[in-house]
Amino acid sequence: MGSRFGQMFAISTWGESHGGAVGVTIDGCPAGMALTEDDIQPALDRRRPGQSRIATPRDEADRCEILSGTVDGVTLGTSIAILIRNKDQRSAAYADFAHIYRPSHADYTYQAKYGVRARAGGGRASARETAARVAAGAIAQKLLGQDLGVEIIAWVDQVADITGQVDGAKLTREAVEANMVRCPDGAAAEQMVARIEAARDAGDSLGGIVRCVVRGVPAGLGDPVFDKLDADLAKGMLSIPACKGFEVGSGYGGITLTGKDHNDPFVMEGQRVRTSSNRSGGIQGGISNGEDITLSAAFKPTATIRHPQSSVDEDGNTVTLEAKGRHDPCVLPRAVPVVEAMTALVLAEHYLRQRGQQGG
Amino acid sequence: MGSRFGQMFAISTWGESHGGAVGVTIDGCPAGMALTEDDIQPALDRRRPGQSRIATPRDEADRCEILSGTVDGVTLGTSIAILIRNKDQRSAAYADFAHIYRPSHADYTYQAKYGVRARAGGGRASARETAARVAAGAIAQKLLGQDLGVEIIAWVDQVADITGQVDGAKLTREAVEANMVRCPDGAAAEQMVARIEAARDAGDSLGGIVRCVVRGVPAGLGDPVFDKLDADLAKGMLSIPACKGFEVGSGYGGITLTGKDHNDPFVMEGQRVRTSSNRSGGIQGGISNGEDITLSAAFKPTATIRHPQSSVDEDGNTVTLEAKGRHDPCVLPRAVPVVEAMTALVLAEHYLRQRGQQGG
Amino acid sequence: MGSRFGQMFAISTWGESHGGAVGVTIDGCPAGMALTEDDIQPALDRRRPGQSRIATPRDEADRCEILSGTVDGVTLGTSIAILIRNKDQRSAAYADFAHIYRPSHADYTYQAKYGVRARAGGGRASARETAARVAAGAIAQKLLGQDLGVEIIAWVDQVADITGQVDGAKLTREAVEANMVRCPDGAAAEQMVARIEAARDAGDSLGGIVRCVVRGVPAGLGDPVFDKLDADLAKGMLSIPACKGFEVGSGYGGITLTGKDHNDPFVMEGQRVRTSSNRSGGIQGGISNGEDITLSAAFKPTATIRHPQSSVDEDGNTVTLEAKGRHDPCVLPRAVPVVEAMTALVLAEHYLRQRGQQGG
Amino acid sequence: MGSRFGQMFAISTWGESHGGAVGVTIDGCPAGMALTEDDIQPALDRRRPGQSRIATPRDEADRCEILSGTVDGVTLGTSIAILIRNKDQRSAAYADFAHIYRPSHADYTYQAKYGVRARAGGGRASARETAARVAAGAIAQKLLGQDLGVEIIAWVDQVADITGQVDGAKLTREAVEANMVRCPDGAAAEQMVARIEAARDAGDSLGGIVRCVVRGVPAGLGDPVFDKLDADLAKGMLSIPACKGFEVGSGYGGITLTGKDHNDPFVMEGQRVRTSSNRSGGIQGGISNGEDITLSAAFKPTATIRHPQSSVDEDGNTVTLEAKGRHDPCVLPRAVPVVEAMTALVLAEHYLRQRGQQGG
Repeated sequence: MGSRFGQMFAISTWGESHGGAVGVTIDGCPAGMALTEDDIQPALDRRRPGQSRIATPRDEADRCEILSGTVDGVTLGTSIAILIRNKDQRSAAYADFAHIYRPSHADYTYQAKYGVRARAGGGRASARETAARVAAGAIAQKLLGQDLGVEIIAWVDQVADITGQVDGAKLTREAVEANMVRCPDGAAAEQMVARIEAARDAGDSLGGIVRCVVRGVPAGLGDPVFDKLDADLAKGMLSIPACKGFEVGSGYGGITLTGKDHNDPFVMEGQRVRTSSNRSGGIQGGISNGEDITLSAAFKPTATIRHPQSSVDEDGNTVTLEAKGRHDPCVLPRAVPVVEAMTALVLAEHYLRQRGQQGG
Repeated sequence: MGSRFGQMFAISTWGESHGGAVGVTIDGCPAGMALTEDDIQPALDRRRPGQSRIATPRDEADRCEILSGTVDGVTLGTSIAILIRNKDQRSAAYADFAHIYRPSHADYTYQAKYGVRARAGGGRASARETAARVAAGAIAQKLLGQDLGVEIIAWVDQVADITGQVDGAKLTREAVEANMVRCPDGAAAEQMVARIEAARDAGDSLGGIVRCVVRGVPAGLGDPVFDKLDADLAKGMLSIPACKGFEVGSGYGGITLTGKDHNDPFVMEGQRVRTSSNRSGGIQGGISNGEDITLSAAFKPTATIRHPQSSVDEDGNTVTLEAKGRHDPCVLPRAVPVVEAMTALVLAEHYLRQRGQQGG
Repeated sequence: MGSRFGQMFAISTWGESHGGAVGVTIDGCPAGMALTEDDIQPALDRRRPGQSRIATPRDEADRCEILSGTVDGVTLGTSIAILIRNKDQRSAAYADFAHIYRPSHADYTYQAKYGVRARAGGGRASARETAARVAAGAIAQKLLGQDLGVEIIAWVDQVADITGQVDGAKLTREAVEANMVRCPDGAAAEQMVARIEAARDAGDSLGGIVRCVVRGVPAGLGDPVFDKLDADLAKGMLSIPACKGFEVGSGYGGITLTGKDHNDPFVMEGQRVRTSSNRSGGIQGGISNGEDITLSAAFKPTATIRHPQSSVDEDGNTVTLEAKGRHDPCVLPRAVPVVEAMTALVLAEHYLRQRGQQGG
Repeated sequence: MGSRFGQMFAISTWGESHGGAVGVTIDGCPAGMALTEDDIQPALDRRRPGQSRIATPRDEADRCEILSGTVDGVTLGTSIAILIRNKDQRSAAYADFAHIYRPSHADYTYQAKYGVRARAGGGRASARETAARVAAGAIAQKLLGQDLGVEIIAWVDQVADITGQVDGAKLTREAVEANMVRCPDGAAAEQMVARIEAARDAGDSLGGIVRCVVRGVPAGLGDPVFDKLDADLAKGMLSIPACKGFEVGSGYGGITLTGKDHNDPFVMEGQRVRTSSNRSGGIQGGISNGEDITLSAAFKPTATIRHPQSSVDEDGNTVTLEAKGRHDPCVLPRAVPVVEAMTALVLAEHYLRQRGQQGG
């Protein structure tokens, strides 16, 4: 279980990091939308390994193939299946420590849960599975963009203790893509790159924060009680490998304010109800209020490091692990399109729900 | 939609803050478990309004009634329905501002979504609905306790900028319940109470952080990819009214460490695989590893304040709102049993899933 | 598990036959619909015990109470909870055979599944739970009626070997309600009543067929592959106690025709595509085609009879059972509103799905 | 929507009849089970087109490829993806009538629902999608067989008005496979083959009944109220293309009996509770009782015929359709493995649910 997300815009993913392929089926994308691989590939290219010198050197083209659900480049309303072949898996690199539980990886928990696991590269727990999410998310983004004009832009806001100064309200994707670390504050970006390279050279790794802003969401998306829009976004973010925290709006930073200073006053802008501040992060009572949705996701430092570590093997022996394999010294730059994808998937789900509830 | 949570331990809640009752149905609680209202009432008593001088003066006994699913105090395996009557709703208190959108409440978003809303007390968006969750959570906690020995303990760790010094590993519920603010650090608790009373007297409100530790969870709970244990916990927390952030393990605090210092080394403790630190928060790859599960939830300052605020009404007029009604100047103390309930509901779901997947 | 039905128009039911009440929560009914108990009670009155001399003498008023989800008689879009108190349960009547497995009842299977059961009256397996479905179904019917003009009319078409001659296309509910057996063919109805009374007097019971026609369903409801409209209707019908078979359109009767005679030719009626026959029963490829939906459900003879029967008890002793209790000698007349309710619930689900998929 | 089935043994299918492939993902198959393509291919071979002179001449090898979820021939507990390439699609054959609504096909309803459709071969409404179900069903059957000793055997019991005399209780799959029509009554089988060939030669088609017996199901599978085992089986059967009816146990045939003769008396067989007759069809109150599960599914005559038919096109013109394409003059023989697959999928779902509910 666990590989499904959404009910109305419903995806199912599959695939191990070192199997033949990863993929996703989307059941519920409305009919009549133009869709080809070209709508998906750019998002995959932003996530793919080997894209820069601060990413893992594993080299995957991550070319997607649409296997069903479209005819003549138009969606049929039925299940869209997408396949992404694995090309550059090198399982042999894992042979030396196949029976060792890598610290802060899922090796031990998968073994404990299933009694068996894919020893090469983390199998289903590998971040490689996020390629499937990014493919599905690209379709969700297209749907939201064409129907509602929604724009979803994530960026790297912090790496270790280096923080960018970024105004999400006016941010463009071009500004995010302007450098390899995807921090639109150029000065901070340079520091981040240098720090990541230093960590890589030391066989170490770094964590940080991705922020995301969503513009153009109409008021009314999200459901009461459990399926609050921010609750589903929180689940979406925490489902990303290495994510350890989530905030919406003022988040942890808001708790030292008092209600008087934290509340967002309502004001009229012509006929439209707006708020003059946005500590709510565009969501009130779990439902979008039409302001920008703002969120953040905290990512721990990559668990795979070259530095020797103490661990145990499957037989209970204490061992020293010196990982080889290929990995990202900092997952943040490649996490950006994944954060966008999960955001898009949650919004597409609630958009279709809302159409169902509201009617025409 | 939105009022269901879980598939195997599946709850459905209902009820408005100023309707006749709130309630919950639990479909999937295993048969043969001793269960009476006495198993549920203590949790409700910890959540109920009017319990202390820093809580809302609305006085609800919150007596629960089990309407189905048990015979002779034993669960039948079929749907358990629980009813909690509302006694002390005073809808008239809301008449003055029934048509005003209260800042940082869900008035506007519900109106935008549904075109209609329960104007008294927030309706379904009121924290009153959490009584139903707490009732269901008490059953989940009993199941987890008797079958696995799981203990779930939450506490108030921070109010505004006052932080307690608390060691979750050894914490008892008695220590949490020792004071009305539910911060087991007595000195901090005193400061918190004073600060809350000052805020209340000033017509203002405060936020803070609830932390939670779960002891006794076996390795293996949680599912890959989307239904990770921490992803479901994140959704559970963010679904609580006023929650703006979630962390598991090292959370936002872990991002300034490097991988070398952040990773949790595996060690053997007799035949058992353990970690010598717990920055993972008891969850790796979305699956429990047998260590304590640790999480936090950030709560914004209560949106209802007596201080005059600028807002708009349904007709688009700018107005000044001076709320009356009765409310908590700080929701944290009463949020503690809600955090425990959501944690229990997520764990019960994954416990039953794991039994299904693993077999006997 | 098992007490939920639907995702978009999502119901959860609860309650045992001899507990304090039965009830249902509906999550997903659109906002802004006029709704009071008066919209629900007529359907419950058609299902309630004690309504005629051929029904069980158990006397339940089955008054419903809406506990949430409406304000001022208008739906809020949030969970609607409905409570129906049990008044005339006489558990003592079951004491004599509490430990005997009644033949063709669910006593043994519940015991085998759960290791415990509600011995009085069948608990959750009792047809009493269908009151909750009928309440929810009444709301679904109101939604479908006001939005689409859908009319759902079921009737008793056969009791034992007595078959009515009924033209569903022009049938009115008044004609169905014209007699206590709910067969609109008056001559057949008289025979059915006489046969049911004879069976009752002999301590025996009868089965039969309920047919249902649905008029006014637009083309396009239903989903491909698994959630076909007729597949969901089949599930709905077979979920009714005592139902043993389901047909849509030509059903079992169609198999002796050849394709040439079975296919429904398309014809134009003005701008509208229609079929000149309707062996498809209004559904093609699992999706409604705009013609009348026609279905049937077969009900076995009531399992409860007064005639002595051989059985075994929980200790494995062979015993003779002489049931007392109160029961229907033929469930068909009271099954009519239940068939209509399940039909309405399936259609409401697919109506809301279709709005979500199609958009405005 | 609609392409998912099951929650615990959860499948998602995709693929059009004339696209590049069809496939299925299974999320929830327990870990540690031996599984290779060889476990799946025999079931696909029984379903594949071109297997006999009474099946469609479309020639598909239907070779399956497992893309994920196993390592070294053992299931990992995570999503299993299976791909089946389409080889012999000839879309050109559909060009002549691409814009005509074929009678009793899903052309019109898909167009009405989606505003677009795959005009070649029925797209997602084609029975070709059942290959994916058969692949998933083969895995479900293996799980049920190894864990519980369950055997699922379906056969063709009737074609047009030719009925076989078959005792399901002792039936073997070998007997079913002994002839191309899959009716284990050899004399009837010969008649059926002759009748099918005659229909084919006349450009016509035939319907019939598939029956299925399941042996070895323990008591206790199935859920109360909506997710009754027979309700889920009914949905499974009616979801198969061309299926118009479903019966469990005595079905429509039982309605002319009275309760006294219809009830199944309980008897002891050693320590085991059994019934001395099985009109319940192995299911009571929606839960298996340990007896053989018996069901039937009615299939209409194939909608595709060569005989000229009157219809309309997308522009509303009345036209005469003379179908070419390749098709089965009678789907029954190839429906047998599909009926088995759907039965297995329903049972696997409830087997895993029951493990979750019952514990070890």
